[in-house]
Amino acid sequence: MSFSTHTLDNGLHLVFEEIPRIRSAAVGFLANTGSRDEPKNLAGVSHFLEHMCFKGSEKRDWRKLSLDVDDLGAMWNAYTWWEGTAYFHWVQSDRLHESIEILADMMRSTIPHEEFDTEKKVILEEIAMYNDRPDSIIFDELIQSAFDGHPLGQSILGTYESVSEITRDEMAGYFERRYAPNNLTFIVTGRFDKDEVIDSVQAACGEWFSHASERDQDSPTFTPGSRVTRKDVVAREHIAFAVPAPPANNESSVTADLLAAYLGAATNSRLFWSVIQKGLADEASADYYGFSDSGLFYVYLSVDPTNAGQVMAIVRDELSGLANGIDSGALERAKTKAATSLVCSGQNGLHRFSQIVGDLSTNTPLKSIDDQLAEIDGVTPDGIADYLKAYPVTANPALIALGPMEKASW
Amino acid sequence: MSFSTHTLDNGLHLVFEEIPRIRSAAVGFLANTGSRDEPKNLAGVSHFLEHMCFKGSEKRDWRKLSLDVDDLGAMWNAYTWWEGTAYFHWVQSDRLHESIEILADMMRSTIPHEEFDTEKKVILEEIAMYNDRPDSIIFDELIQSAFDGHPLGQSILGTYESVSEITRDEMAGYFERRYAPNNLTFIVTGRFDKDEVIDSVQAACGEWFSHASERDQDSPTFTPGSRVTRKDVVAREHIAFAVPAPPANNESSVTADLLAAYLGAATNSRLFWSVIQKGLADEASADYYGFSDSGLFYVYLSVDPTNAGQVMAIVRDELSGLANGIDSGALERAKTKAATSLVCSGQNGLHRFSQIVGDLSTNTPLKSIDDQLAEIDGVTPDGIADYLKAYPVTANPALIALGPMEKASW
Repeated sequence: MSFSTHTLDNGLHLVFEEIPRIRSAAVGFLANTGSRDEPKNLAGVSHFLEHMCFKGSEKRDWRKLSLDVDDLGAMWNAYTWWEGTAYFHWVQSDRLHESIEILADMMRSTIPHEEFDTEKKVILEEIAMYNDRPDSIIFDELIQSAFDGHPLGQSILGTYESVSEITRDEMAGYFERRYAPNNLTFIVTGRFDKDEVIDSVQAACGEWFSHASERDQDSPTFTPGSRVTRKDVVAREHIAFAVPAPPANNESSVTADLLAAYLGAATNSRLFWSVIQKGLADEASADYYGFSDSGLFYVYLSVDPTNAGQVMAIVRDELSGLANGIDSGALERAKTKAATSLVCSGQNGLHRFSQIVGDLSTNTPLKSIDDQLAEIDGVTPDGIADYLKAYPVTANPALIALGPMEKASW
Repeated sequence: MSFSTHTLDNGLHLVFEEIPRIRSAAVGFLANTGSRDEPKNLAGVSHFLEHMCFKGSEKRDWRKLSLDVDDLGAMWNAYTWWEGTAYFHWVQSDRLHESIEILADMMRSTIPHEEFDTEKKVILEEIAMYNDRPDSIIFDELIQSAFDGHPLGQSILGTYESVSEITRDEMAGYFERRYAPNNLTFIVTGRFDKDEVIDSVQAACGEWFSHASERDQDSPTFTPGSRVTRKDVVAREHIAFAVPAPPANNESSVTADLLAAYLGAATNSRLFWSVIQKGLADEASADYYGFSDSGLFYVYLSVDPTNAGQVMAIVRDELSGLANGIDSGALERAKTKAATSLVCSGQNGLHRFSQIVGDLSTNTPLKSIDDQLAEIDGVTPDGIADYLKAYPVTANPALIALGPMEKASW
């Protein structure tokens, strides 16, 4: 497994990861633009635009695009988040040239007028549907609260109101600024001939014009606070709270990952034994998420409202107890699980593509599996103690609660 | 990728598939026993027993078992179906010896008295939950109807009544007969040292005693018929119907697979264009399932009850239209998709394990990816025409409908 890069004259950056002895490749584009890059009045435009990139170009209407992808036999998907938008195909290596041509064509969407309103309805239904699923939107709301007032605190989907108001021409303006070749990265991982890939990308993308498209923002400031919103559609109270953590490109991000697993992995973690195993909640998990210039360490609970106060007290005890020392056997288990997951997914093209996209979008150096295994291996109880001093998990959190409760009982 | 085998003195059969250049292995046991092997009064015992194998052995109680699997960092699962029960770990190759010892220990469950009633409640809740989800149980019910009166027509989960009545000692008797080493197969796929694996399996399983445990059944006879059952918990009518198809080990099974994709894959299939794309149903899919001595070709619909009659008429037209000829371009697309899926999952340990389990449990010769690609490539419109003469899809079907409707409108 080895990485290399290439840059076209128009600024389009190409990233290659060769995985020997397989017959497939995952290929696609990362657009360095997501909800944090949206003007307030266009909240949700990145995600809406992702949908429109499937709706037609100069060469293809949506039906032809769908049929051509089907001809490839590609497994495909696209996703939008706070800091980027990604599009990929997973194909047999001998179909790469056609795949690149189609993906490049999608990156030059004409945002067809006749499909715009139809797709807007699809997006609005998606927003309405997610509003009925607290577990799906709670992390988005948590980030809005934690980074309140900063562009990173903007919702990925946007609001019903903002999406309703977006016009086709406003989207076209955003597209022109944000999908310039110097703000896109082409990625391929798996088996391929690098020179042939460069030729295919040059042929498909070489004539695109570059534009100024930097993300010029201050780093976000963390804002603690608590918001309890009643949602009668669910029987459980969904509670998520976060404290500051390092950005993804910080060397302690792997420590944050393992601390989260130690505290709140699905099995045999601290919260598993003190909350789940005692039957006090359906879910009690901890996780770390790193952005390019910030990060969050967070806990998520799904709990019968009558138990919420008791469970929150236990979780607080667990958080403050971390400073008393880490059980080295349990940490080793968490490390082994992380290493196994990494090794088992190392040949999975989509997994590799997603990881490269995540690293590129957060300015994190690309790492081989061996490098990542060494990082995991290097995490120690002492390292976690240092982490807890730098990023105390007992800090005043940002908290969101969605469910039957009117107000906090904790 | 290459297969080899070995047999211990007590009849335990070992199957090896070496995949070079990866760092992991998927390993586990196939018990050649499932719902078709259950006496009527023990319906559901195979699935219940699968759960009990996680509950303790001579060496470990359930908590120790859970912790030891966690120590391995294994991804793991188990599943029971009509013709078998499978248990697996996916681990880093250097943990294989420990993994084999734990899996073998699970295969010698003591079926602890003190856990039996607790786990029975879990199973009964699972049965109740599935009864509220027509899409989850409709295929099980379809098979019960299609093979009515034959053991293959028995439900995998069993009924609330049958599971309630099973005693711990009845399960122990079933276990002794069906989990004898000569009725189990050990499987490992990925990277491993074959001699070391044989030593580990010999050490863990060499002392197990064999028993007579053949499956002595006539092949099932297909029974057409129609059953419409009102289920008010859902708004959509769920309809599944099946016609006879070849067993999994028949050379035309790959033709049945591709015909199903041509007719009813999720995108760009016949049913996609004539039903889904027209907004007439949420789902309209076709699939093929091969058992060891029989098979079914089936269609599944999820549809607004007011559209059910119209959609069924369209589906019947599509089925009878297949005899007028197959579009070779669309067949090529279906073949490319099948080949891509195969190639992309070729390095996935769990996928390989599941495929080997499926082949072994249906007496299908194990095939390399290259062999399977050649089989897919060999399917032609003429071959499908021959298939349709041997296994007409317009035959009188077995049909199950679950949803708001009192009776059929088709």
